[in-house]
Amino acid sequence: MYSVVKRLLIGTPLSSSELEGQRLTKRVALAVFGTDAIASTAFATQEILVVLVPAAGMAALDYLVPISLVVIALLVIVTASYRQTLYAYPSGGGSYIVSRENLGTGASLVAAGSLMVDYTLTVAVSIAAGAAAITSAVPSLRGDELQIGLALLALIAVANLRGVRESGRLFAPPTYTYIAIMTLLVVVGLFRVATGSLGRLPVDQEALAHFTGREAVLAGASSFLLLRAFSSGAVALSGVEAISNGIQAFRKPESRNAAITLTWVAFILGALFLGIAVLASHLRPTLRPDETLLSTMGHAVFGNGLLYIVLQASTAAILTLSANTAFADFPRLSGIVASDAFLPRQFANRGDRLVLSNGILVLMFAAASLLIAFGGEVSALIPLFAVGLFMSFTLSQSGMVVHHWRGRQPGWQGRLAVNAVGAFATGVVTVVVVLSKFTEGAWVPTIVIPLLVLLFWLIHRHYARVDRALACPPGTPLPDIVHTVVVLVPSRVHSGVLESLAYAKSLRPQYLHAVHVAFDQESAEGMLATWAEYRFDIELDVVSSPYRALTRPMLQYIDALDERWQHDTVTVIIPEFVVHRWWEALLHNQTALLLKARLLLRKGTVVTSVPTHID
Amino acid sequence: MYSVVKRLLIGTPLSSSELEGQRLTKRVALAVFGTDAIASTAFATQEILVVLVPAAGMAALDYLVPISLVVIALLVIVTASYRQTLYAYPSGGGSYIVSRENLGTGASLVAAGSLMVDYTLTVAVSIAAGAAAITSAVPSLRGDELQIGLALLALIAVANLRGVRESGRLFAPPTYTYIAIMTLLVVVGLFRVATGSLGRLPVDQEALAHFTGREAVLAGASSFLLLRAFSSGAVALSGVEAISNGIQAFRKPESRNAAITLTWVAFILGALFLGIAVLASHLRPTLRPDETLLSTMGHAVFGNGLLYIVLQASTAAILTLSANTAFADFPRLSGIVASDAFLPRQFANRGDRLVLSNGILVLMFAAASLLIAFGGEVSALIPLFAVGLFMSFTLSQSGMVVHHWRGRQPGWQGRLAVNAVGAFATGVVTVVVVLSKFTEGAWVPTIVIPLLVLLFWLIHRHYARVDRALACPPGTPLPDIVHTVVVLVPSRVHSGVLESLAYAKSLRPQYLHAVHVAFDQESAEGMLATWAEYRFDIELDVVSSPYRALTRPMLQYIDALDERWQHDTVTVIIPEFVVHRWWEALLHNQTALLLKARLLLRKGTVVTSVPTHID
Repeated sequence: MYSVVKRLLIGTPLSSSELEGQRLTKRVALAVFGTDAIASTAFATQEILVVLVPAAGMAALDYLVPISLVVIALLVIVTASYRQTLYAYPSGGGSYIVSRENLGTGASLVAAGSLMVDYTLTVAVSIAAGAAAITSAVPSLRGDELQIGLALLALIAVANLRGVRESGRLFAPPTYTYIAIMTLLVVVGLFRVATGSLGRLPVDQEALAHFTGREAVLAGASSFLLLRAFSSGAVALSGVEAISNGIQAFRKPESRNAAITLTWVAFILGALFLGIAVLASHLRPTLRPDETLLSTMGHAVFGNGLLYIVLQASTAAILTLSANTAFADFPRLSGIVASDAFLPRQFANRGDRLVLSNGILVLMFAAASLLIAFGGEVSALIPLFAVGLFMSFTLSQSGMVVHHWRGRQPGWQGRLAVNAVGAFATGVVTVVVVLSKFTEGAWVPTIVIPLLVLLFWLIHRHYARVDRALACPPGTPLPDIVHTVVVLVPSRVHSGVLESLAYAKSLRPQYLHAVHVAFDQESAEGMLATWAEYRFDIELDVVSSPYRALTRPMLQYIDALDERWQHDTVTVIIPEFVVHRWWEALLHNQTALLLKARLLLRKGTVVTSVPTHID
Repeated sequence: MYSVVKRLLIGTPLSSSELEGQRLTKRVALAVFGTDAIASTAFATQEILVVLVPAAGMAALDYLVPISLVVIALLVIVTASYRQTLYAYPSGGGSYIVSRENLGTGASLVAAGSLMVDYTLTVAVSIAAGAAAITSAVPSLRGDELQIGLALLALIAVANLRGVRESGRLFAPPTYTYIAIMTLLVVVGLFRVATGSLGRLPVDQEALAHFTGREAVLAGASSFLLLRAFSSGAVALSGVEAISNGIQAFRKPESRNAAITLTWVAFILGALFLGIAVLASHLRPTLRPDETLLSTMGHAVFGNGLLYIVLQASTAAILTLSANTAFADFPRLSGIVASDAFLPRQFANRGDRLVLSNGILVLMFAAASLLIAFGGEVSALIPLFAVGLFMSFTLSQSGMVVHHWRGRQPGWQGRLAVNAVGAFATGVVTVVVVLSKFTEGAWVPTIVIPLLVLLFWLIHRHYARVDRALACPPGTPLPDIVHTVVVLVPSRVHSGVLESLAYAKSLRPQYLHAVHVAFDQESAEGMLATWAEYRFDIELDVVSSPYRALTRPMLQYIDALDERWQHDTVTVIIPEFVVHRWWEALLHNQTALLLKARLLLRKGTVVTSVPTHID
């Protein structure tokens, strides 16, 4: 039953040797790893306005192009920086690996924690924005954003549990449709503005009052406010690092293909982001609480026809699928961290379909929790978003600076300069983001990331302790084993007990005992009488347990027995019923299971189950 | 943590030898086993009116005394009948035991099923009526009957998990208070009617319309309607059989003490039931949907003062505690049925406090389900109630007839006559109840009771099969054991593997193998190289598992090994990590557990865990 459902959802198992075959072409890779970066054009512009409009009213639109240009400058710096990484780390150079190689374990764990927080927020924000795109186009769904988001999340998780290649095939068409329709929106919009067939949109005073109502509208924007607006816009860079993590999924030559793809992604992202800002500054759309900025502009440029529907549908699709970038990278990262013994080993196990299933599941639950906690609202999640993102950028670029300095390959000075600029710029942005948005939510990642780092250390300490305890260099002699065998006899003598006794004798132990735990005098005497009848040449010890407990008297008995000899191994043989239907198991007391679990915790005790099958 | 909570709720464990000390005096026994019977006076009269008022309006009150007299006649017959049982079965003679001894297994299982349904409904009805008594007095709680009922249910269950004696001590005061205040209500009420200080109550037309609104009010009541009204009133007899089940809880001489107590219970029940009917026929209170009949009459006779409060409080208390009778008897019955191997053995195990904890828990969940399914409403539960009750009465009395006929002790003719009258009367009532209430809910027990009987048979068949499979008379020779030993080697060599190897060698097996399951070629070669380094004198077999499964390749390997020899025993030795903190267990793959569970299902396979402790 479980396996049928699993097969239907996940597909048939794939062999380990099929891993190599799952490589992606550049065009498919752009969709899989670039979707996140490109999709952020759907909400980043709006989030700048969400910060500015309450203070500056409609004048906020005047700041849109300048702020966007600063964000694009940052994008150029970061892209140049990351191209270096793709060539320096052809086997995959995410922030975690670059930090680990160059900055040491501590920094790498901060990077890992930052990235994990970042990926989770990428999923939550993309899906929340995708749901908003849907409800903008279909007003009757407004209010159900959270339910829509959770359904989309489940859909992506299942797609990813099925495997990488199918994800790419599924996700390329909407990504390219989105790029095309957005280009059309900007070009047609600006053309109509230039030809005079489209002018400024009328101001919607009611919608405006929704944002400006709470605070007095200031004459202009303060510089602190501009920093906050920039911090919101900077989330457009989310996803630029995705390719450096997923480099191994590219076809050979991986570095070159990845670098070309990265440049394309950055170009598309920057062009669309700037285009939207320019178009908005001409159309001057009013920010609305229940419709996205893109939808408002789409209505103005395309009307209500097919093109508008395509715009909203592909926006919703690319946003939903942008979460897919994180679903490709989070499990990969947690798999690497797990291989380094900083996360539970299960994160490094590949599932039936060769994907890292546990990472996918953890990401799904973490993102669902975030969506539920913040009511599925994009603007509430944005302040949490940029911290992890820019922290990991900074660590990655700093690591590259160290890398160039150490290696000093021909031309290292220029490369070092590129990465140093990148590290400095993203470092400054990290500080700006934390300070300008601290009370609005940026405090959450500043607490969660250190807690994750602590968790990594605790896990690592445990694995190290286990390794020390288990260490044995070649040549270590096998330990001596001295046998003492105890056979547990249940309330009566049956054929399973006979088998257990025969098995115990076949071990030729030094000492062999049979034990019965009696709850009252009557059953003790009854058992001794029965035992005598069978004339086994093994003595039966009866342990009295007036409080009807089984495990404690057994342990006391074994302790007493064990005290007679040093360094011996006690083997407890437990005759076990095995029934082959689950409901039959409910009809037996299952004391064997409890006893086995408890005996395993006792040192120097081997537990042997001799099963008797009933069918 | 679990055990601290358990101690606080349940108390410290009691020794098996303390069982004898838990006997009850007659006065306490009347409260423990009589509460159910006496408490039914709180709702039985009202339920007669619930049937009649929709058809007859206020004229329904004219039928109250005649119907009550018929019920009391039935009570006298059943009491006389049960006194015979108390003397004939001094060690406890519930319907199940009497049927088993005299009518055979089939009839006894029908009796057991009927009683279990009856006890569950006793709990549900009593608690629903108790909640109604509370909300009648405190109108602000109306609408919360179900929540109040579930809280009371949990309270009783915990009291019973603590043990019998404490239940009696807790429950005697409210029972005697109830008897006193009800007597006062009837005496004062009738006195005030006689002296003319209290006349007919005014008719509440609005409340009346609530009942009569749905059907046209007929001129009088049809005979079918009177049968239905009688069926509702007959639930007053619920609990009369309780003493015969609990006879072993009485002090010596048990039979005599139990018979005296039964007579007292029947007398108190009959007197109060008749008194209420007579008083109601004089006061003519209007039936109300949100206040009990007793509360309406209490207001009229006592006003709103202290006596009214005592009436409602003790009614609520005795009704809640009447459920306690079922909590004393249901586990006792299921324990006996379990000893006969018709219910899982766990029902016969005494818990820490010497009570049959599993029966208590099952009853609690069954009653809670009924309360929730029927919205905590008494009138909705009543049609289900009488079927099981009178079915078990009939079987018990019929069994006694056969008992007298077989034994033919001096004076058997008279005793047989008493039981024959009882069997006939209760048999007729069973038929009347099923027919007159079938569509209103009586169909539920007529389906559930046969299903329970089927379940009993299936369970019995399983235990019989196990007994046959395990049978071995004294003198059966011990089986021969030929050893083949397999040591499972995990992904690497560590000190736990060394211990397992040493242990395996100490068993001096015929054949010894080490096995490694490899997910790809690389790890297979790595493991073989490591193995060679250690120079163990045991060969390592590598099993390839391209789909990363562990258990299936292991089983195939063992099957292939096993085919070489007939009748041998394969011992699989599994090196197991044991970590002592729960969260540490999450950091390991726990494949050992899965493998152990799967290997246990394979015939002729012994599973041995060699633990390595990490701390």
